[in-house]
Amino acid sequence: MPSERLRLDALAEPIVQAPMAGGPSTPALAAAVSDAGGLGFLAAGRRSPDALRADIAALRQLTDAPFGVNLFVPGADDADPTELAAYAAALSGEQERQGVAAGSAHHDDDGWEEKLALLLEARVAAVSFTFGAPPASVVQRLQAVGSAVLVTVTEVDEAHAAELVGPDALVVQGVEAGGHRGSFSDEDGRGELGLLVLLRLVVRAGIALPLVAAGGIADGSAVAAALTAGASAAQLGTAFLRTAEAGTSAAHREALAAPGTTGLTRAFSGRRARGIVNRFQREHRGHAPSAYPHVAHLTGPLQAAAAARGDADAVSLWAGQAFPLAEELPAGWLTRRLGADARAALAATAQRVTP
Amino acid sequence: MPSERLRLDALAEPIVQAPMAGGPSTPALAAAVSDAGGLGFLAAGRRSPDALRADIAALRQLTDAPFGVNLFVPGADDADPTELAAYAAALSGEQERQGVAAGSAHHDDDGWEEKLALLLEARVAAVSFTFGAPPASVVQRLQAVGSAVLVTVTEVDEAHAAELVGPDALVVQGVEAGGHRGSFSDEDGRGELGLLVLLRLVVRAGIALPLVAAGGIADGSAVAAALTAGASAAQLGTAFLRTAEAGTSAAHREALAAPGTTGLTRAFSGRRARGIVNRFQREHRGHAPSAYPHVAHLTGPLQAAAAARGDADAVSLWAGQAFPLAEELPAGWLTRRLGADARAALAATAQRVTP
Repeated sequence: MPSERLRLDALAEPIVQAPMAGGPSTPALAAAVSDAGGLGFLAAGRRSPDALRADIAALRQLTDAPFGVNLFVPGADDADPTELAAYAAALSGEQERQGVAAGSAHHDDDGWEEKLALLLEARVAAVSFTFGAPPASVVQRLQAVGSAVLVTVTEVDEAHAAELVGPDALVVQGVEAGGHRGSFSDEDGRGELGLLVLLRLVVRAGIALPLVAAGGIADGSAVAAALTAGASAAQLGTAFLRTAEAGTSAAHREALAAPGTTGLTRAFSGRRARGIVNRFQREHRGHAPSAYPHVAHLTGPLQAAAAARGDADAVSLWAGQAFPLAEELPAGWLTRRLGADARAALAATAQRVTP
Repeated sequence: MPSERLRLDALAEPIVQAPMAGGPSTPALAAAVSDAGGLGFLAAGRRSPDALRADIAALRQLTDAPFGVNLFVPGADDADPTELAAYAAALSGEQERQGVAAGSAHHDDDGWEEKLALLLEARVAAVSFTFGAPPASVVQRLQAVGSAVLVTVTEVDEAHAAELVGPDALVVQGVEAGGHRGSFSDEDGRGELGLLVLLRLVVRAGIALPLVAAGGIADGSAVAAALTAGASAAQLGTAFLRTAEAGTSAAHREALAAPGTTGLTRAFSGRRARGIVNRFQREHRGHAPSAYPHVAHLTGPLQAAAAARGDADAVSLWAGQAFPLAEELPAGWLTRRLGADARAALAATAQRVTP
């Protein structure tokens, strides 16, 4: 058992690779980032315990460097059946278009206990949580086997609540971020702060934990800005989506390289998430209910069929607001360049403002 | 005629006080910021030419330091009469509550020509524009009398369009900002980028003009982060709202000092603007049309009556996302502290990341 847990300030590069559920996060991507001195992550959300176990084994074949695993904290089953039925009906055209039936909307806990047991055994360097803070007992058990624990927050009150369960650090996620909002609740108007504002509010609220800044960071200067605003490291997801090591689909890669904008939508999963605006998002974002993971089950077969056909207009193209800056580069090289560019930006700016 | 126009990097403090139309911006506030080495601003938007002339004269009585004036660029009269009539009907309860009739919804150009003529005569150090880029001929005439010209942008394509009219600098406004979005159009989903993302996109798009970063900046560390991300100066509005020199109403000051959140709404003016969420915003944000300044005329008498009664639930409480960080301080002192804190944050961060 390691006697000391991973410290963010011990990373050679202040770069955390964001866990990206649904395909983009691969053992190869995490290994490349960790080998380059950053912290790679596997995404356990919506992935079976067996697949997660295989991912961890594969990653350990690739590197001895520390890495992390992200878990989704399961929520209560409080979806409105009437709203779900209405949304299912609204998707009838999509069923015809994709030639498959929608899935059955239901609740699940994403294999919470099984994945926790697996992680207690796997003893990875870091475990991060999204959609809420785990119980303090879970944090303690993970820390006892040597894992540093991170909790994702999007509001100051979430940071206070997260602090109470005793994590090693917080991931502070601004509204610019791609993929799901890591918010504790899916309520409109909550968890929609810009990264810079959220960082300063959390620091000024007296939260003394190390902070990982996430959301819209895609180059070294933005990494440097996040560090200047009080973060110990920056978490980047979208910036890695076009690397060779990422499992990003061809349709997704094409959308990332084209002009476009992003929007927050519940259309794909029933929970607010940011992706490149496509036909499915435009047509369904207005009426998709807050019902996670019910809606994810509902759209699952439709998205799978669309993905198989390479139909970028009907799959979730998760991406952060800074996606135009994502480049086709080797992930390790990108990690090192982000760190070097951040140091250069800081040195140049500090010199420029020195009286 | 001054032979050289104001340069942002010549300011003793990298602080621009945001023009805040509707009361908060006063000659006293602009004078305090400019005297402290920042750049104070008057807000000419929705203010009569005579009042603007008086403001400039009053400010010049207070200081010899350079200051700026902000103008709203008038738009086309493309409001939908049916939508306006429906919104007027929806405000019937507000008329009863405030005991006054709503105003008549109509278009106007906010005294554009008269204010431009006044500014060509007044020869102020800086003129900034919101809601679009002025014609290149206007920019040239202002520059010819010694005024530096700034154009507010919220998207990369707006930055490219602004560059073409030949300004001295751009104000890059993130979605975190209080008050009106400075966007060229009021279209949903446009002009909603986080500040850090927008700064990096504009810089990486090759825009070579000096940038003033605006939106959610409320302390020295955030100023430092904006400079690190490529800005030459930071523009702060909300941070100054609680200073003694600001013309902020008592009801507004109270809301700023209380817990709360902000939201983007067209309910007060017909154009997206960020303010602290109150009853009026909650009840009307869902159905207010995009129709500026028509809706501002419609709600004008209602808001005036509410303001006279100190009813904070029925007036626009413009504020940026970082409003909890606004402090009750003298504006000049705050300006100097923001600069000193920014320099300290930069020096500390640069030292921390140096290998």
